[in-house]
Amino acid sequence: MHTSTALLTDHYELTMVDAALQAGTADRASVFELFARRLSGARRYGVVAGTGRLLEAIENFRFGDAELDYLRAHRVVGDRTLDWLADYRFSGDIWGYAEGDVYFPGSPLITVESSFAEGVLLETLALSILNYDSAVATAASRMSHAAAGKPLAEMGSRRTSEYSAVAAARAAYIAGFSATSNLEAGRSYGIPTMGTAAHSFTLLHDSERAAFEAQVAALGADTTLLVDTYDIEQGVRTAIEVAGTGLGAVRIDSGDLPVVVARVRQLLDDLGATRTRITVTNDLDEHTVAVLAASPVDSFGVGTSVVVGSGTPTMGMVYKLVAHQNDSGAWVSVAKKSADKVSVGGRKSVRRSFNPRGVATAELIFLGDGPGGEPEGTERRPGHGDHHREVLVPLVTGGAVEPGHTGTEGIAAARERHRRRVAELPAVAMSLTRGDPAIPTEYR
Amino acid sequence: MHTSTALLTDHYELTMVDAALQAGTADRASVFELFARRLSGARRYGVVAGTGRLLEAIENFRFGDAELDYLRAHRVVGDRTLDWLADYRFSGDIWGYAEGDVYFPGSPLITVESSFAEGVLLETLALSILNYDSAVATAASRMSHAAAGKPLAEMGSRRTSEYSAVAAARAAYIAGFSATSNLEAGRSYGIPTMGTAAHSFTLLHDSERAAFEAQVAALGADTTLLVDTYDIEQGVRTAIEVAGTGLGAVRIDSGDLPVVVARVRQLLDDLGATRTRITVTNDLDEHTVAVLAASPVDSFGVGTSVVVGSGTPTMGMVYKLVAHQNDSGAWVSVAKKSADKVSVGGRKSVRRSFNPRGVATAELIFLGDGPGGEPEGTERRPGHGDHHREVLVPLVTGGAVEPGHTGTEGIAAARERHRRRVAELPAVAMSLTRGDPAIPTEYR
Repeated sequence: MHTSTALLTDHYELTMVDAALQAGTADRASVFELFARRLSGARRYGVVAGTGRLLEAIENFRFGDAELDYLRAHRVVGDRTLDWLADYRFSGDIWGYAEGDVYFPGSPLITVESSFAEGVLLETLALSILNYDSAVATAASRMSHAAAGKPLAEMGSRRTSEYSAVAAARAAYIAGFSATSNLEAGRSYGIPTMGTAAHSFTLLHDSERAAFEAQVAALGADTTLLVDTYDIEQGVRTAIEVAGTGLGAVRIDSGDLPVVVARVRQLLDDLGATRTRITVTNDLDEHTVAVLAASPVDSFGVGTSVVVGSGTPTMGMVYKLVAHQNDSGAWVSVAKKSADKVSVGGRKSVRRSFNPRGVATAELIFLGDGPGGEPEGTERRPGHGDHHREVLVPLVTGGAVEPGHTGTEGIAAARERHRRRVAELPAVAMSLTRGDPAIPTEYR
Repeated sequence: MHTSTALLTDHYELTMVDAALQAGTADRASVFELFARRLSGARRYGVVAGTGRLLEAIENFRFGDAELDYLRAHRVVGDRTLDWLADYRFSGDIWGYAEGDVYFPGSPLITVESSFAEGVLLETLALSILNYDSAVATAASRMSHAAAGKPLAEMGSRRTSEYSAVAAARAAYIAGFSATSNLEAGRSYGIPTMGTAAHSFTLLHDSERAAFEAQVAALGADTTLLVDTYDIEQGVRTAIEVAGTGLGAVRIDSGDLPVVVARVRQLLDDLGATRTRITVTNDLDEHTVAVLAASPVDSFGVGTSVVVGSGTPTMGMVYKLVAHQNDSGAWVSVAKKSADKVSVGGRKSVRRSFNPRGVATAELIFLGDGPGGEPEGTERRPGHGDHHREVLVPLVTGGAVEPGHTGTEGIAAARERHRRRVAELPAVAMSLTRGDPAIPTEYR
């Protein structure tokens, strides 16, 4: 793996820089905006995730000798552009939705203000990270609500590519999951990791009892024993015989879970293991989690569905030039004019409005405005008991990443922000059916 | 990014090693099998991809100080296991389907024979890579057929996470795409890259004409001009005025493509640009590519749909212990017994059978057998004009990766193998509807 992120981008970003440098337009001050025209999957709200990863990736967006050699050998750009790229580092401003916040159609999630050339280079990388991470976080947020307070662990590493798995663990944690199976996510992001044994461990041993004895000897009686390799009822009995009534938990990975779980709870109680927990892990998604939340399940492990966004593996975000200066220094708002892909040009600021009970009522997008002059969280009271909150926050200023958005500090802040922001949404936001956004986007 | 791939795995793989080392069962000779119970998305055939990446990742699967420090600090395993991990390198045998081949339900795509501990550690990594890469390749293969010989470029980097994008470009290339927009895929895997300009480049300039002039000055008249930022017909006229009738291509990224493409072809011809090609890139998938293949389109750029597997972002493959030796050295076939997740225990070999016309008729899985003693491609003629071919190939022998499967050599071989193997399938394999596998899997 290369440390530089500079080639995690599309060929045409570099040819555009090449042509703009020759034309003398590369230095025009420009504003790019990353947004989604709609909520993919007819979700009721989106969850912003990946912002901290993007800021870290921008810090490593450098063209070193290895990158320049490749571009030179394959004649992607000319010598003048190679020289320019060698000196590249993003020196502009970025503001946007803070990670963990919710978003709606048209929300300007990331706004990049810089020269055209500096900003256009970040297009592919920004979209890759935000589109994937937000798809996972949006699905995970629905699951977190469906679980009704019972803990969820992300266990989907095997069902997405090996580095997506690490990003997915991070996004799910921000959206309310409490742990992951992925060790690299533990190392890179400080997320709690968990796991005990698979069916192969039971099958390796000469009997289920021998496998349970081996696991309890190594991991203690507080471990989680997987009881469904052969017969679940017998598995539970053997588990308690081996570990005693202090067994931490049993895991069930197959069968008709609502029925099986009720039987296992009864059996555990009958055996005196009243504090042994039940965790389930069988191809769960937000719908099955919602059904099981009312059963005597204690925790959930979610795999495939969370890492592939539960039917919506990407959020359809785009990155568009919305304004630039012309040669006389005047700002020009721009937007593509085709009938089926409408964009709204110009700089924007955003306020979320709330009713007197503190429930969000609309996402207000103000056109022709810079970012809010007031910090995130500034509240205004326009009368009638309603109030507004500024949504956009500075992320990069003069090329320097603002503190608090990256690393484990950023993840913790995003997780807490997500919890608070989702709680402000109207009840319809929690519907698991497809439908309209929970609050309207209004342009002012 | 860390060079080691050893933490791209699930916590429980390590706790299983920890417990098995304590129990004295870690060294039992074992056979693990990676397979899919069904073809996700009701595809007619699957395409094996990621094998070369997996072999490269196994070579970097080492626990260095950084990995061991993390595991120690978080008490994932005990000291004895840390010492064992420090010396870990896979020393067993791996055989399987060669990359680019097609597969069916139950096909043993990867078989790992080693000690339990050595083999179990590779579970998550193997599944991550094969599940994602094969999902992309399977979708890309359908698109390649739908394009009826017209070239396809993979342009979906922005719609999947930044490293998945690189893997997706590789998988799509193996399945018949001819290029990618992703520069890292160009550098890492030698795949041809392409791209010229986005709408932002047109919008940056004071007029569409000025943008086209800038692009032609930098990239030459043989470039591809994006003509749909404002009005397509006017865009085409301006493009030919600026570049001349030697313009390489026009790109169309919006509108009702079959109608628009026919009009643009007529207009180009009327303007004398009879050799200027038309490329289209508007949210295409295998279905829209099939519709457009009969129109005067010259090439396709496919984005979102290919990198997310066109509705099937993961192939549902699993990695199961199918056999192990007991303490007396006898081999024991094992399989989970639950009703809804049937596995077939034991070692397997595979032959694909063909009718006298060379059309594949069945995937024959022989139980209780080792890998085929004959090399891939060995043909047998059991009579009646039918014949068989051995499917499995050695991938790792005694810990050493077999030549020909990794790097650019492996990719080229996989791309050629894919072309030949798909051509042997019966016509129903090319149906884009959901349905049964193109040939049955038969256990012998």
